[in-house]
Amino acid sequence: MADFRLMQDLAQDAKTKMVLLVLDGLGGLPQAPGGPTELEAAARPNLNRLARQGTLGQSLPVGYGITPGSGPGHLGLFGYDPLRFDIGRGVLEAFGIGLEMGEKGVAARGNFCTVDSAGLISDRRAGRIATETARPLVEKLATIRLPGVTTEVRPVKEYRFVVVFRGEGLSAEISETDPQRTGAAPLPVRALEAQAARTAELFNQWIAEAQKLLANDRPANMITLRGFSGDPRLPKFGDIFKVRPACVAVYPMYRGVAKLVGMTTIAFEGDTPADEFAAVTRSWNDYDYFFIHIKPTDSRGEDGNFEAKVKVIEAVDQALPALLKLAPDVLVVTCDHSTPAVMKTHSFHPCPVLLWAPATVRADEETSFGERACMRGGLGTFAASEIMPLMMAHANRLAKYGA
Amino acid sequence: MADFRLMQDLAQDAKTKMVLLVLDGLGGLPQAPGGPTELEAAARPNLNRLARQGTLGQSLPVGYGITPGSGPGHLGLFGYDPLRFDIGRGVLEAFGIGLEMGEKGVAARGNFCTVDSAGLISDRRAGRIATETARPLVEKLATIRLPGVTTEVRPVKEYRFVVVFRGEGLSAEISETDPQRTGAAPLPVRALEAQAARTAELFNQWIAEAQKLLANDRPANMITLRGFSGDPRLPKFGDIFKVRPACVAVYPMYRGVAKLVGMTTIAFEGDTPADEFAAVTRSWNDYDYFFIHIKPTDSRGEDGNFEAKVKVIEAVDQALPALLKLAPDVLVVTCDHSTPAVMKTHSFHPCPVLLWAPATVRADEETSFGERACMRGGLGTFAASEIMPLMMAHANRLAKYGA
Repeated sequence: MADFRLMQDLAQDAKTKMVLLVLDGLGGLPQAPGGPTELEAAARPNLNRLARQGTLGQSLPVGYGITPGSGPGHLGLFGYDPLRFDIGRGVLEAFGIGLEMGEKGVAARGNFCTVDSAGLISDRRAGRIATETARPLVEKLATIRLPGVTTEVRPVKEYRFVVVFRGEGLSAEISETDPQRTGAAPLPVRALEAQAARTAELFNQWIAEAQKLLANDRPANMITLRGFSGDPRLPKFGDIFKVRPACVAVYPMYRGVAKLVGMTTIAFEGDTPADEFAAVTRSWNDYDYFFIHIKPTDSRGEDGNFEAKVKVIEAVDQALPALLKLAPDVLVVTCDHSTPAVMKTHSFHPCPVLLWAPATVRADEETSFGERACMRGGLGTFAASEIMPLMMAHANRLAKYGA
Repeated sequence: MADFRLMQDLAQDAKTKMVLLVLDGLGGLPQAPGGPTELEAAARPNLNRLARQGTLGQSLPVGYGITPGSGPGHLGLFGYDPLRFDIGRGVLEAFGIGLEMGEKGVAARGNFCTVDSAGLISDRRAGRIATETARPLVEKLATIRLPGVTTEVRPVKEYRFVVVFRGEGLSAEISETDPQRTGAAPLPVRALEAQAARTAELFNQWIAEAQKLLANDRPANMITLRGFSGDPRLPKFGDIFKVRPACVAVYPMYRGVAKLVGMTTIAFEGDTPADEFAAVTRSWNDYDYFFIHIKPTDSRGEDGNFEAKVKVIEAVDQALPALLKLAPDVLVVTCDHSTPAVMKTHSFHPCPVLLWAPATVRADEETSFGERACMRGGLGTFAASEIMPLMMAHANRLAKYGA
C-alpha cells in the first residue's frame, strides 16, 4: 500500500490533471471456457486505443482471493490499505446521502422488510418498495424519540434507509439484526463489548417503536439494521497527496466513500457516462484529481446479464472522447472489484487496469483492454493501493526519494 | 501472506473439495540454454489440459532468492509465512515418524557418521547405511539414561534418526554438532542463551555416551546432531480455514509438517502416485482439503538425474485421471521449492503453479504447464502463502470483505 508519510514527504504541486475512471465491477469471466469476458466482448475502440498507447496490468483490491465490498474496493483505489482502514456499511450509506456522522455518531443501514403474523421475515427487502413508497415510512420512523440521544433517519434508495444516533457514550460494537434469511425473526441488537450495552438497548427500543409504527403497513411492516459503525476518521486524500480531489458519481454510496476521504462531490444532473463526463468538464479547472464512478457495470453483473454489462461498457467507450478532449495527464480505467455476470456477485478476481499517461508512460505491447491482455500487461499484478502512487508519479507530482 | 484473522473472519463452510498436489522440487532448469526444463520435457497431456483450462503463475516459497528447506517450503503452501513460523528440522523429523514433542520437548535430527582414529569425520553419513542396519544402533542409543530428562530415540531412514529430550527447563537454543565437512571433528553442543547451558550439557553427555556405545561399530561409529527445536505450536490449519484437512504422503517428513499444522494423516499401502490418489479416493468424503505429496521429483533432482525426474513427472501425469475423476472444485499443482537436476539441490527459483477450478477460474492463454508458461501466466508472480486464500476463494469458502 501507499505509505502515507512517504507520499506526504514526496508529494509536490504540479499543474497536471489525474482522472480515475472506475467502472464498478468491470472485471468479468467468460460465459463458456475460452470465450470472451464482458470487457473483451464489448466494442471498445477508444479503450483499445488507450490500451495501445498506455500500459496494462491487473490489481488486487484487497488481496489474493479476497472479494471486496464497495467500501474496501474504493479505499484501495484511493491509496488506502483496505485491511488497515475498515469502514462500516452504515457510515458509507450515511455519507452517501450527505449525512454527517459527527464524532459521536453511530450509523446503521436499515432495510424495510416484511414479517408474517408470527414475526418471521417473509421478504428481506419488502418487495423492493420504491423510494417514494419508503419516504413516508421513514418520516414515521423520524418521529421516534429516545432518552439521551438524537436520531436522524433518511431514505436511501428503494427499501434502504440510514439511521444515525448521536449522543454521549455510544458504541458501534453492537450486533446486526438481519438474520440474512427468510423464515427467521429479526435478531435483537446485542452488545459486543461491555460499554456498548446502553447503545444496544437504545437501538432495541428504537426498533420496537418502529415495529409499532409500521404494524399496519404492507409490505414494509418491519425493519432490520446492519453495519453499525462510527466515523472512521480517515486521513484526508487531499492532505496525503496534496491535490484538490473531486468525485463524480451517481450513487450515494460512492459519493459517500469519496467524502470519507475528503473529496468534494460535484453535483450534476443526469446519470449517463456522458452526464458524468460533462460534470467533469465543467469543473475541470477547479480540481487536480477526478474520481468518476460508473455504476451499471456492477449492477448488470449482479443481475447476471452478460449482454447488458457489455452494453454498459460500450456506452462508456462511446462517451469517452468527451473525457479525452480534456487531455488529462494521467487516466486510469479500472474497477473496485470484479462482478462477473456468470457469478452474479462481486468476486475475488483481479481488476483489469489501464494506465494512460502520454508524457511518461512506458507502453507495453498490448493492443486491447481486456482481462487477458491485462494479465500480460506491463504493470504486472499488484495491489490496488499502488494505483495512486503510480498516478501521482505519471502526473509529475512525486519528488525523488533520497539524494 | 494470508492474514489468519482475516481468513478466520471470512472463512465459510461449503461442500467444495480442494486438492493441493505437491510435486516436491518440481521446478527445474534446462540442461542447455534454450532447452526444456524437466517439466517442459515431460510428456504431460493431463497437466497440459489442466493448464489450458486453468491459469498459471509462479510462486515464491519464502522470498526472492531464498532457497527453502522442506519445512518452510510446505508451510508457505499451507498459507503460513515461513519467515514468521520457524520450525526446526528436529521437530519436523520427530513429527514425521509420529513422535509427539510435548510442550517440554527438544528434538534433534541425528546422523550416524564415521570418524577415524583421530576422531575426525571421514563420512558424514556413515556410508548411507540401510535403515535396518541403523535400527540396532538406535536401540543402543535408547539405553542411555540422563539425570532429570527422559530421552526417546527413533530411526528415520538410512543413517538418520531422531532424538527427543523431555523435561523441565530445556531450551532448544543450542548449537549443532555437525561440522558440515569431513576431516573435522564433531563440534560440542554450545548454549546460545544463558538458560540453555544445562540442555547443552545434557546433550554433550548423551553424545559422549553414544560415542562409547558405538565405538566398535563400523561404519557408524559416531553421531552428529542438528536442528535442535521445540514444538512451534502453530495455529491449526483447520481452525484458520475452517476445513477438514488431510495429508497423503509417503515420506515421514511431509506427514510431519502436515501434522504440525493439524492435518490428519491418511494411512495407505504403496508409494506410487496411483497409490496416493487411491488413498485420496477412499477418504474423499471425509475431508475438504487434501495435501498430496509426491517425493521422487525432488529425489531425482537431487541425484542430478534429469531424465529420471522427467519420468517421475510423466508417471504423475499418467496417474492423474484417477484424481480428476473425483472432480475436485479446486486443484493446485505446484512444488515446495525447485530442485533443478542440473543443480542437484534445492534452489531459489520460483515454483510453477497451476490453478484449476472449473467453476470460477479466469483462464489465461497458456496452453501447457511449464516454467516458461508459468512466467507469463495469469496469476503473476506471488508469495506461495497466497495459494491457500486463492484456493479458498475458488472453493467459495471466503465471504466478502466489507460492505
